[in-house]
Amino acid sequence: MYRVITIGREFGSGGREIGKRLAEELGCAYYDKEIISSIAARSNLAEDYVDQVIEQPVRTPFPIFSSLSLSVPAEGSIYEINQSIFGAQSELLNELADKSDCVIVGRCADYVLAARKPFRIYVYAGMAHKIARCRERGDDGNGLSDKELEKRIRSIDKARADYYRFYTGSPHGDRMTYDIGINTSTVEIPDAVAAVAALVRAKK
Amino acid sequence: MYRVITIGREFGSGGREIGKRLAEELGCAYYDKEIISSIAARSNLAEDYVDQVIEQPVRTPFPIFSSLSLSVPAEGSIYEINQSIFGAQSELLNELADKSDCVIVGRCADYVLAARKPFRIYVYAGMAHKIARCRERGDDGNGLSDKELEKRIRSIDKARADYYRFYTGSPHGDRMTYDIGINTSTVEIPDAVAAVAALVRAKK
Repeated sequence: MYRVITIGREFGSGGREIGKRLAEELGCAYYDKEIISSIAARSNLAEDYVDQVIEQPVRTPFPIFSSLSLSVPAEGSIYEINQSIFGAQSELLNELADKSDCVIVGRCADYVLAARKPFRIYVYAGMAHKIARCRERGDDGNGLSDKELEKRIRSIDKARADYYRFYTGSPHGDRMTYDIGINTSTVEIPDAVAAVAALVRAKK
Repeated sequence: MYRVITIGREFGSGGREIGKRLAEELGCAYYDKEIISSIAARSNLAEDYVDQVIEQPVRTPFPIFSSLSLSVPAEGSIYEINQSIFGAQSELLNELADKSDCVIVGRCADYVLAARKPFRIYVYAGMAHKIARCRERGDDGNGLSDKELEKRIRSIDKARADYYRFYTGSPHGDRMTYDIGINTSTVEIPDAVAAVAALVRAKK
């Protein structure tokens, strides 16, 4: 069986739901926002700041609220601070993967943990489906119009793609960066989870 | 269950093997080169000619050997003849899909049969894997060097991509054109077949 499963995803495609259900199905750990919290705790950075840096790297400087630990330079460019956070995050991902089998959503985990040969999933969907899913989950930015919501989804996906490309050198969603791609516009999430679980278990 | 499964593939990625095994697993029909033969018989064109047109559309004129049926204009540009062959092929694909559940490899079947909502698979792999697979199967152009074999694979994939784009308007391998993408560099073919069969059967 694969020991580590990584999930890249487009916003609103259901990648997180697939990750959670898959971890339940396989009885292994699941990491997503929790990773951010841990890094924040470790680096003594405010969680909101780390969150913003992780989703939108190398964009705008942002005030740092708290004292910095050794792993993050107290002085330095936004570039250096981003690199330090990415380094701390990579270290953490490796520690988590050492600890137990796990599913990790986002965070360039496919790239960071490449040496462990994780099973790499990419979850995507058409825009209409992503808009519908955001509405269904009440994640529609307080009733944005379809046009506004589409703009928001594109903006988040662009930030993720920029982040991924910046740290890995590959386009987000490039098919050579994943083992299986799942289009949730057409594939039901429970079906996808069952199929992937079978595939993960079949691995010698 | 999905009634029609279409497979797009890169040369040397094992798409045809996945198609054959999947059809066996699901107990349904499988179509690949057979389609070309049927079109050739129907249009009274020499099979080699149809084969060439299907793999390399709108490239070079090529002599036509035999008399033409009503479905293909006796006179006309290479463009018109290609369109006629594509039209005859599309008709045939619909007839085959009417006849029974089936797996169809290539031929833009995902696009031609879109109204039937087929389950659309795309099979791909890294170049090193495709070269190794070609050698394994004795399909290495009589002992071409790795460099020559890579050139041959790229050329065939380019012809397929040109063909796909010409008739569908989408890039070959664009993730929005498939429901699931499988990277056979890392996913074993029997595992992929088992997972896809489960997914296809799960569909209401």
